[in-house]
Amino acid sequence: MVDAKKEALRISEEKGGKVEIQSKVAVNNMEDLAIAYTPGVAAVSSAIHENKSDVYKYTSKKNTIAVVTDGSAVLGLGNIGAEAAIPVMEGKAVLFKEFANVDAIPISLDTQDVDEIVAHVKAIAPSFGGINLEDIGAPRCFEVERRLKEELDIPVFHDDQHGTAIIVLGALYNALKLADKQLEQANIVVNGGGAAGMAITRKFLKAGAKNVTLVDKTGIISEDDPNLAERHKEIAALTNKEHKKGDLHEALKGADVFIGVSAPNVLQKEWIKDMNEKPILFAMANPTPEIMPDEAKEGGAFIVGTGRSDFPNQINNVLAFPGIFRGALDSRARDISDDMQIAAAKGLAAVIPDDKLDTDHIIPDAFNKDVVETVAKAVRDAAEK
Amino acid sequence: MVDAKKEALRISEEKGGKVEIQSKVAVNNMEDLAIAYTPGVAAVSSAIHENKSDVYKYTSKKNTIAVVTDGSAVLGLGNIGAEAAIPVMEGKAVLFKEFANVDAIPISLDTQDVDEIVAHVKAIAPSFGGINLEDIGAPRCFEVERRLKEELDIPVFHDDQHGTAIIVLGALYNALKLADKQLEQANIVVNGGGAAGMAITRKFLKAGAKNVTLVDKTGIISEDDPNLAERHKEIAALTNKEHKKGDLHEALKGADVFIGVSAPNVLQKEWIKDMNEKPILFAMANPTPEIMPDEAKEGGAFIVGTGRSDFPNQINNVLAFPGIFRGALDSRARDISDDMQIAAAKGLAAVIPDDKLDTDHIIPDAFNKDVVETVAKAVRDAAEK
Repeated sequence: MVDAKKEALRISEEKGGKVEIQSKVAVNNMEDLAIAYTPGVAAVSSAIHENKSDVYKYTSKKNTIAVVTDGSAVLGLGNIGAEAAIPVMEGKAVLFKEFANVDAIPISLDTQDVDEIVAHVKAIAPSFGGINLEDIGAPRCFEVERRLKEELDIPVFHDDQHGTAIIVLGALYNALKLADKQLEQANIVVNGGGAAGMAITRKFLKAGAKNVTLVDKTGIISEDDPNLAERHKEIAALTNKEHKKGDLHEALKGADVFIGVSAPNVLQKEWIKDMNEKPILFAMANPTPEIMPDEAKEGGAFIVGTGRSDFPNQINNVLAFPGIFRGALDSRARDISDDMQIAAAKGLAAVIPDDKLDTDHIIPDAFNKDVVETVAKAVRDAAEK
Repeated sequence: MVDAKKEALRISEEKGGKVEIQSKVAVNNMEDLAIAYTPGVAAVSSAIHENKSDVYKYTSKKNTIAVVTDGSAVLGLGNIGAEAAIPVMEGKAVLFKEFANVDAIPISLDTQDVDEIVAHVKAIAPSFGGINLEDIGAPRCFEVERRLKEELDIPVFHDDQHGTAIIVLGALYNALKLADKQLEQANIVVNGGGAAGMAITRKFLKAGAKNVTLVDKTGIISEDDPNLAERHKEIAALTNKEHKKGDLHEALKGADVFIGVSAPNVLQKEWIKDMNEKPILFAMANPTPEIMPDEAKEGGAFIVGTGRSDFPNQINNVLAFPGIFRGALDSRARDISDDMQIAAAKGLAAVIPDDKLDTDHIIPDAFNKDVVETVAKAVRDAAEK
């Protein structure tokens, strides 16, 4: 295996970044010029001026999205600023293009103010058919996404929250199928009180889960906790109906599912035997999971997933966002609704036929060619409803 | 000749716009993914975080510009709005790529407020190595450009003003050479009091012209005119030193050069005999010039240029902007200064060697392969000074 970091630096320098513009029309003579630019282009502009929705017919808007960041929560690197975030946005643009033929433009904003981010994204929106928010820190990301979804007529999607949640839900559908359990009855523990943990929790609830318990560094989050953090108030009212108290070990007692988006090695293998039968564990802290897969198996885990490519059942970010935007753009959806997101998760789960499904194959490989089209179709079908 | 407008509509619809993103890196397996995205990309982001100027080393910023409009003055179509302007921005992006390998991203802003335009462009600037302002109406365009040039550390260029002015100046250098006259002594009449006419006048003055007279619909612009428009006050103080009064015919008496950026058929061929010997006329109203070339020749014109491709000496927009941004990006200039712009005009003029220069060939053809490199080199050399 090459050193990915060294190679990323070498290739980025050699190629001068990872994306470029390509013209779809040749310009070799005056006739070409008259068609690509003036006077020909005047007819196209006039057509759109007469009928604004023709912008989807005649321009790149229909296949182009902005990948927007404020550089405040970039990978695990934190608040490294707009310029340093560009390589990640370019990488995302590469994946959008290579996996789903979506044209994504990296836009790194020189502000971390909610009102300003909203205003800038709204201002550039005419050129784009969708907005993918990326690496924007919590709690700013919630407000930015909520307002943009309200105020724009193109889909807005914060991948860090919803992308991961959709893949986790898709993987969970297949894991529960193998364990012969139902999402509605499953007792689910989500460990991690940040944006990802809250997004996953909400997605589970939207999909029909009834028993979800959220745990953060301070322990089980409970509605009646006098020290409950402001940002957890809303979600506390929807989770942990029995008002359990205690630490992660306590939360795991009788749980069917553990979802970790927290920190390395926080789950001890001895606790797994206190879970319900056929326990499902997705330990997604990166690069070191909450518990290593072999340890989890020793502890009695039925299914283990991680974020890593060197173990089975990789919960890989790239499984969702390309197909989701492909589907949303194809159906010219104004929004990527919860229903569309849950449909995407079901589509992702369905990529693996029942006869191929086993405890080490609950989620397709990132390079499985069926993923994008299956997810996109699920999103299109849901959008049309 | 095909019908360019019909063909532009057909191609725009068939291809879904005229530009797309292309990935410079392949993503066919987990190793590729680790280099293009995580974890490899973290090293690139960290490097830029440590040394911000490395954004030019490792990202597309160094070759990428935004082509920004507010949709307020699109071609001859006027204030048709952000969406309807997109085909023109895409056409411009096509030309930037095809002529000079500059990656240009169309950004159509959903506002026509000066403060907002400035704020939005500043906010998106981290991703871009330059800003090309396009089809923004006067007088807004002056203020937007002035403030962005002051406040950004990347080059900002309003092509509608300066691009045309640079080409006109380049063509004029060669025309004056054939007429054996000097710019400093030439008596120049610029007809058209809008943004283009003012930009051309200012460029001539910066290049050393001493006798320029600006004429608009109301007649010769003069500093001592009590009805002088506010927008003309500054330029009136720099032009028409003799405080001449009267109409275009009056202005042309004794003039060496007529530059028209005004309206069709406003120049009568009988007036040309009142100009100085070897009169030079650039009649650039589009598509019908201030005077048709054959009429101007009948009237005694020595050299005639127009904006049209079906007559000799076409003053074609595409002769300047690709090479100017190529040169500015290559030299990582923080600005495209007047000196760089005048150098570009001289470079453009120099593309035609003296032995090829004649009254029907004062300016190179748009598809002359030497144009971009010669202009870019002139800009780079001037930037380095």
